[in-house]
Amino acid sequence: MTETPRMPAHPFDGDKLHEECGVFGVVGVTDAANFVALGLHALQHRGQEAGGIVSHDHELGFNSARRFGYVRDNFTKQSLMETLPGPISIGHVRYSTSGAKGQTAIRDVQPFFGEFSMGGAAIAHNGNITNADALRRELIERGSIFQSSSDSECIIHLMARSLQRNIPERMEDALRRVEGAFSVVAMTRTKLIGVRDPLGVRPLVLGRVGDGWALSSETCALDIIGAEFTREVEPGEMVVITAEGGVESHFPFRPQKSRFCIFEHVYFSRPDSIIGGRSVYETRRQIGVELAREAPVEADLVCPVPDSGTPAAIGFAHESGIPYGMGIIRNQYMGRTFIEPTEQIRNMGVRLKLNVNRALIEGKRVVLVDDSVVRGTTSRKIKEMILDAGAKEVHFRIASPPTSWPCFYGVDTPERDKLLAATMSEEEMRVHLGVDSLRFVTLDGLYRAAGEVSGRNPDAPQYCDACFSGEYPVAPADMIEKGFMLKAAE
Amino acid sequence: MTETPRMPAHPFDGDKLHEECGVFGVVGVTDAANFVALGLHALQHRGQEAGGIVSHDHELGFNSARRFGYVRDNFTKQSLMETLPGPISIGHVRYSTSGAKGQTAIRDVQPFFGEFSMGGAAIAHNGNITNADALRRELIERGSIFQSSSDSECIIHLMARSLQRNIPERMEDALRRVEGAFSVVAMTRTKLIGVRDPLGVRPLVLGRVGDGWALSSETCALDIIGAEFTREVEPGEMVVITAEGGVESHFPFRPQKSRFCIFEHVYFSRPDSIIGGRSVYETRRQIGVELAREAPVEADLVCPVPDSGTPAAIGFAHESGIPYGMGIIRNQYMGRTFIEPTEQIRNMGVRLKLNVNRALIEGKRVVLVDDSVVRGTTSRKIKEMILDAGAKEVHFRIASPPTSWPCFYGVDTPERDKLLAATMSEEEMRVHLGVDSLRFVTLDGLYRAAGEVSGRNPDAPQYCDACFSGEYPVAPADMIEKGFMLKAAE
Amino acid sequence: MTETPRMPAHPFDGDKLHEECGVFGVVGVTDAANFVALGLHALQHRGQEAGGIVSHDHELGFNSARRFGYVRDNFTKQSLMETLPGPISIGHVRYSTSGAKGQTAIRDVQPFFGEFSMGGAAIAHNGNITNADALRRELIERGSIFQSSSDSECIIHLMARSLQRNIPERMEDALRRVEGAFSVVAMTRTKLIGVRDPLGVRPLVLGRVGDGWALSSETCALDIIGAEFTREVEPGEMVVITAEGGVESHFPFRPQKSRFCIFEHVYFSRPDSIIGGRSVYETRRQIGVELAREAPVEADLVCPVPDSGTPAAIGFAHESGIPYGMGIIRNQYMGRTFIEPTEQIRNMGVRLKLNVNRALIEGKRVVLVDDSVVRGTTSRKIKEMILDAGAKEVHFRIASPPTSWPCFYGVDTPERDKLLAATMSEEEMRVHLGVDSLRFVTLDGLYRAAGEVSGRNPDAPQYCDACFSGEYPVAPADMIEKGFMLKAAE
Amino acid sequence: MTETPRMPAHPFDGDKLHEECGVFGVVGVTDAANFVALGLHALQHRGQEAGGIVSHDHELGFNSARRFGYVRDNFTKQSLMETLPGPISIGHVRYSTSGAKGQTAIRDVQPFFGEFSMGGAAIAHNGNITNADALRRELIERGSIFQSSSDSECIIHLMARSLQRNIPERMEDALRRVEGAFSVVAMTRTKLIGVRDPLGVRPLVLGRVGDGWALSSETCALDIIGAEFTREVEPGEMVVITAEGGVESHFPFRPQKSRFCIFEHVYFSRPDSIIGGRSVYETRRQIGVELAREAPVEADLVCPVPDSGTPAAIGFAHESGIPYGMGIIRNQYMGRTFIEPTEQIRNMGVRLKLNVNRALIEGKRVVLVDDSVVRGTTSRKIKEMILDAGAKEVHFRIASPPTSWPCFYGVDTPERDKLLAATMSEEEMRVHLGVDSLRFVTLDGLYRAAGEVSGRNPDAPQYCDACFSGEYPVAPADMIEKGFMLKAAE
Repeated sequence: MTETPRMPAHPFDGDKLHEECGVFGVVGVTDAANFVALGLHALQHRGQEAGGIVSHDHELGFNSARRFGYVRDNFTKQSLMETLPGPISIGHVRYSTSGAKGQTAIRDVQPFFGEFSMGGAAIAHNGNITNADALRRELIERGSIFQSSSDSECIIHLMARSLQRNIPERMEDALRRVEGAFSVVAMTRTKLIGVRDPLGVRPLVLGRVGDGWALSSETCALDIIGAEFTREVEPGEMVVITAEGGVESHFPFRPQKSRFCIFEHVYFSRPDSIIGGRSVYETRRQIGVELAREAPVEADLVCPVPDSGTPAAIGFAHESGIPYGMGIIRNQYMGRTFIEPTEQIRNMGVRLKLNVNRALIEGKRVVLVDDSVVRGTTSRKIKEMILDAGAKEVHFRIASPPTSWPCFYGVDTPERDKLLAATMSEEEMRVHLGVDSLRFVTLDGLYRAAGEVSGRNPDAPQYCDACFSGEYPVAPADMIEKGFMLKAAE
Repeated sequence: MTETPRMPAHPFDGDKLHEECGVFGVVGVTDAANFVALGLHALQHRGQEAGGIVSHDHELGFNSARRFGYVRDNFTKQSLMETLPGPISIGHVRYSTSGAKGQTAIRDVQPFFGEFSMGGAAIAHNGNITNADALRRELIERGSIFQSSSDSECIIHLMARSLQRNIPERMEDALRRVEGAFSVVAMTRTKLIGVRDPLGVRPLVLGRVGDGWALSSETCALDIIGAEFTREVEPGEMVVITAEGGVESHFPFRPQKSRFCIFEHVYFSRPDSIIGGRSVYETRRQIGVELAREAPVEADLVCPVPDSGTPAAIGFAHESGIPYGMGIIRNQYMGRTFIEPTEQIRNMGVRLKLNVNRALIEGKRVVLVDDSVVRGTTSRKIKEMILDAGAKEVHFRIASPPTSWPCFYGVDTPERDKLLAATMSEEEMRVHLGVDSLRFVTLDGLYRAAGEVSGRNPDAPQYCDACFSGEYPVAPADMIEKGFMLKAAE
Repeated sequence: MTETPRMPAHPFDGDKLHEECGVFGVVGVTDAANFVALGLHALQHRGQEAGGIVSHDHELGFNSARRFGYVRDNFTKQSLMETLPGPISIGHVRYSTSGAKGQTAIRDVQPFFGEFSMGGAAIAHNGNITNADALRRELIERGSIFQSSSDSECIIHLMARSLQRNIPERMEDALRRVEGAFSVVAMTRTKLIGVRDPLGVRPLVLGRVGDGWALSSETCALDIIGAEFTREVEPGEMVVITAEGGVESHFPFRPQKSRFCIFEHVYFSRPDSIIGGRSVYETRRQIGVELAREAPVEADLVCPVPDSGTPAAIGFAHESGIPYGMGIIRNQYMGRTFIEPTEQIRNMGVRLKLNVNRALIEGKRVVLVDDSVVRGTTSRKIKEMILDAGAKEVHFRIASPPTSWPCFYGVDTPERDKLLAATMSEEEMRVHLGVDSLRFVTLDGLYRAAGEVSGRNPDAPQYCDACFSGEYPVAPADMIEKGFMLKAAE
Repeated sequence: MTETPRMPAHPFDGDKLHEECGVFGVVGVTDAANFVALGLHALQHRGQEAGGIVSHDHELGFNSARRFGYVRDNFTKQSLMETLPGPISIGHVRYSTSGAKGQTAIRDVQPFFGEFSMGGAAIAHNGNITNADALRRELIERGSIFQSSSDSECIIHLMARSLQRNIPERMEDALRRVEGAFSVVAMTRTKLIGVRDPLGVRPLVLGRVGDGWALSSETCALDIIGAEFTREVEPGEMVVITAEGGVESHFPFRPQKSRFCIFEHVYFSRPDSIIGGRSVYETRRQIGVELAREAPVEADLVCPVPDSGTPAAIGFAHESGIPYGMGIIRNQYMGRTFIEPTEQIRNMGVRLKLNVNRALIEGKRVVLVDDSVVRGTTSRKIKEMILDAGAKEVHFRIASPPTSWPCFYGVDTPERDKLLAATMSEEEMRVHLGVDSLRFVTLDGLYRAAGEVSGRNPDAPQYCDACFSGEYPVAPADMIEKGFMLKAAE
């Protein structure tokens, strides 16, 4: 069923992949929901469509608020935050749901909540369940009523039907039935729970805030609340945290080798986060260094496509010795939906966000550094603006390998035939984009930048890089049922 | 879990009982939801807190919209109604929920929806399920996740778990587990379904609109859409209606003698509705006639407490020969919540709604006719206003017997010890209200006015009159478990 | 200039004339604006489109709030009322503006405010300035900048340009330039001012509230705040009231014989108000008595068109001996704008407000009593509904003479050729409406009901009755310039 | 008078001066208001509190819409933009008003509009009128009624009272009475008008868009609509532009030597704008170069305070050879008003916007480059965050001289005693901020970076630099009357 109000379908946004979610939770502090609001604000880059917070108070029970739009616009109102009292709280920001056909109802916004005979539980999920369709069919057949079109709701229904007598064990039961990538933050009346899937595809970190504890998708959200980063939750680990008892660690799944998402390093995570012991900023800067070594070029200016290309551009400029400059200026009050005047404006969509710094560009040979090329539409428009401004040459350097496969682990990607790199060679792409040269960092170069000195281990890749390699560490069952063709084994 | 936005708790409103719901459904017309909006508008007196509409369209599937506030404010917007296309639709207006502790979340607003393996169904319910607590416990124990605090949600979960292979049969299954009073309107993709409980406590009527069919709580809502009143749905009957096949009738319950709610005649229903073959207006006018016979008085003016006392006052004036006049004028722009000035205004709450027509009242002996006395608070204030305006005598005549028992069948009543008549004799009430005389119509007089020539049959009462008699036709299981004491059998 | 947000044009509403404004003011009480909000609520029937309140506080100066919609929806919020502190306040409710072509901007909503060299003043105006166009042209020529399209704004600009050194004298100056009908309530930092035009066309009354004073369009608004009615402001009188000094009375205009609007008795004022020493309810009831004498008929039921026809119907029934009954039931949750279903509903507009009480009407000869006939559209629809319900005969009795001339003194009337009585004889109207008989009360009968024992004095009419007689006590200068033809002198 | 809704007072925001306005206008294109909305979006950095647009259409006359909040949130709605038709339009974004005591009502939002006898005119103003108080007193004395608390409203009242017979001449009349800084964009039914004050303190540029013309505060707003930059409007010039006749140029004022605001180069303007023939980005980068020469330091990292310090940091790094890096990461979803948790978070205000990139900073000697120091509060917090993250040394380099005087020409500055540099020497400031070294660019260095090869001409400064030098090119009459002490002449 579709419910109003609902959000308009967001068109897939040009040349970017999008992380679908961020999760955050806190236990053992006064007014925990205020901390969660701050944490979600710091994770807003992981999902801008909607956000939700659940808290529990000894007297007032569970409370929740879910809203479309930014955390800063919704969860900063005294009147709203007062409805979310208590010392334990979790929250979620989301980009879009896998299930809905382009439209999201407010009831698709997490956290999800279920009242069980032993008490209530709320969960928030970052990732994607690759066997959700099959699970949903089975649960409906048995009499479960779904509230949303979200794949994540399966988890709470599986918990409701578990025969275990406490909630963490019900959660283990449920997650053992689930395939795919998941970093889950959950809460009962007194327990904060965090789980990562056995491959550890999506991030989840643990921190100490005052006498309490926090779980977060990224360390940058620990920073905003003044929490101290303790450690990552391990792949396959479930932590159960109470205000008094501290952190208990469980490993409910069959152990597997870690396959963390390498795109978190390329684009999703904030540059000030630490992931897998590495600075995201430093990895990105190092990709620029690798690119400058792998694909050098004679030029006058290294210019980032702001903001995601900036660290790699700094690295490229430093390594190559070519001056670094801001050839493209970003409007910090970005807008998406202005009404186009009748007399059409060329590349209006891009102009709302970016403007060329003509005085700097004019007459120069420009190296443009961007994080990735997905469909190539924005890249073409930026190139046109740069040439219109009088650049003599344009050389694209891309801080990731060609993106030629969709992601099924919690990232919004277009269908395979919409991916430029799925249908064109590097040279065909260069011609298509109309630039003087186009080079992507190699997969090995990317691995080296991410700290793997000898590059990618082809027999046992250290990361999940399915979007580049087509090698999916978990078979996407629902998609295969719908006809998705895996890469032919060689 | 409590969810924002939520409505503030509404204080029980003085001297009135409140019907909790109105239901309406239509099949076989273009843009069915527009008809439902009109029907709900005509049923607004049965519930002002919130309203919801579900429709189904062949292409777009099920759609729903649920809103706090009046139908005229929400369901008149082109943009909203366009989200509710299709030839079949049901709707609901509600006053408050039995389950919520004084606060309602939007997800408590009906219709409720469930997706089953054979397709979706939506239901809207007028009444109250007296074993809802026990059912809910059982369903949770088995793994159902409740979305709301409403007792009505049990029905959809029972349906989800039924082993039957089609929805009407699942509904029979579910309703056989349910105790209490219910008039249910439901829909599948193609079928409009109506059911009344075996006692037929709450009303439900069937009408013909163009080539389609309508179900409604009252006939006045058939009038607004230009539908022709066909018949009442029988106590214990389930009608299953399709655009092509017309009306199928089933009787899934063990037959019982009908016990329609007599308070529908006294106050809940609109005077222009026809119930049980009787004009509500005429019954009310006739109560005034009975009162004038049972409790005559020397006076100069018969004056209704507007608007619910008007028909009985007309009857009383006609029978007694005392002139009828509008001694109390109602503000048609009623407001509840003005900020009281620092310098207090006596009886401000009542003044917002009513004003005395001083010129008419002054120096007169006044018979005030009201429909009922619940807590007596408003009655006292009205009496004070009348005396302040210079009335010589005030005689209260009440168009129902003393309300001394709470209702558990879908009516909002205060707890028993808050009912004036539960703790005082008629004379004590007269003294408490400070009037020259106070008389209630007798139970027999009420039955006579409702068309039962020889009055109430004490061995087999023709109506449910538990609020007056304490004789509950269905034992209120949940309430008894919570300690409610039934009237001792004599 | 037109400004958004603006209200949609309201179509002239069928068979009713509409008062355009109500005014209220208070001085000498704590939180005066709260009293004003209550007073405006009681005057809401005089204008439902918008309302505004200005208050003055010693420390915080003048504050104002203006809103579209009902007083109960806007001026009941704590947060808003806290922005309107202080012991002196005035307010205004409006129906529509004379100046705007069917659309109103928020800046057309009164009170208007001007800052003068000796301090600020706010004014609120009920009535219409018949030379406003000429005044506006002159003021613009001299350099005044108008904020609104309202005729009333002229007054504040005339005050701004007055050479007098205090505000009440500037107001006298200004009002001496103004022609037409006006009851004005104004305030400075410490003075509450009330003025009626020399003919006293529109009402204005004075009351005592605690140690302070109140001015109001009608006495019913004194009742709601518990104020005691002192007296009417006299035609041509200006009262200047301070908390300490009490009421000063001035008569700045050349004395003229009073010509109060007789339509206030027929329809505009609330029945519980006292006007010119007469109960409005009693006058209306008496019109029914006159009608029963002037135009008797054999019938079975006297039925009011609710609510405005009710008192006259009671009088008609009493005088004629024909039983009184509610043959038409009004929906108390009136709505205007439901989306009409594709399959059209006959008379849908009327059905949203009124429904026939079929059981009462069927087979009867019905006398329908209404207050007036303007365009006749609603009357026709009501007649159709009554006949559809099975009435044997329909007899219209109208509690005012034929409305055949527009009003230019603050009442919303259609252009002359839209008035049914301007183009048809009584018999032609009867045929047009399709009823068995149609009779209007005579002008003399109306005057008798209003207390003039020997009827209307044709040489010096006691009231303004231009809408019936075409005799305008003030020549409507702007309209004549636009081509309006006065009634030819005989 | 204060009117609700109003904005809360915005606290002066730490270490930044704020431009108060941006203006934009277009004539000779279809749907001109759509272009204006885009232009205002590109000028949003000049004022974020509110925006307004006026347009004129041959049939529908003048229309306007004024809103609090961002252009992207208000002026992107189809329904709103459709109310602003026509081929000519102007608009305004504002930061705050000089007149209001910390609170702004919607009627303070420009453009202002006046209806004159020869037709209407709307104006939008960037700058500040230094004799506005005196003008306002005089106008009120003569009978003008002010709608707002804005100094800019004086202009429209002076125009209303001018004896000239056409609007451009009335505007010349009015502006000759006005002292201070102003760049005005105005419109009549057919003419777009632009004026700069004789000193040319604030910017205004002219561009060609299709067959029409545009006026804008900055060239970056020409870029967004695809307009071609034609030239700057000259200091003291008035351009009168029609769709057919093109651009007429007038010089209504006594000629004076230009004194453009040098702070536009330092901070206000967008780096991609061209001002006075110079790239703003290049000037800022060059300031960094000057700083590296004037105040070199041994360090490991040059780090901008984002985003305004970035170009100067790039210049500093390039000139000094010290590596450039993003040591501070800005949250692109900035929020101001989160509710602080009970357990306080150090420097929470800054954390909402900025986070330290700890991995980069740790153990390094850091040069922090910022654009200016106003009160020093934010600078201290940033320094603390940098040290907490493990920096070994912190060296502040400021891309402007010490700000020791308030601006009275359209910039929001704190009172003089709140300016750190007004009360402390450079060394005192260093100690106060707690950094290892603190250096400001010299006034001469700044002038050199802005293209004045031999620095500032002390006898006839090429720019207005009153905020640094205390030399005010126009005596601030209203402020002097209020007691402001000019710098003592040496």
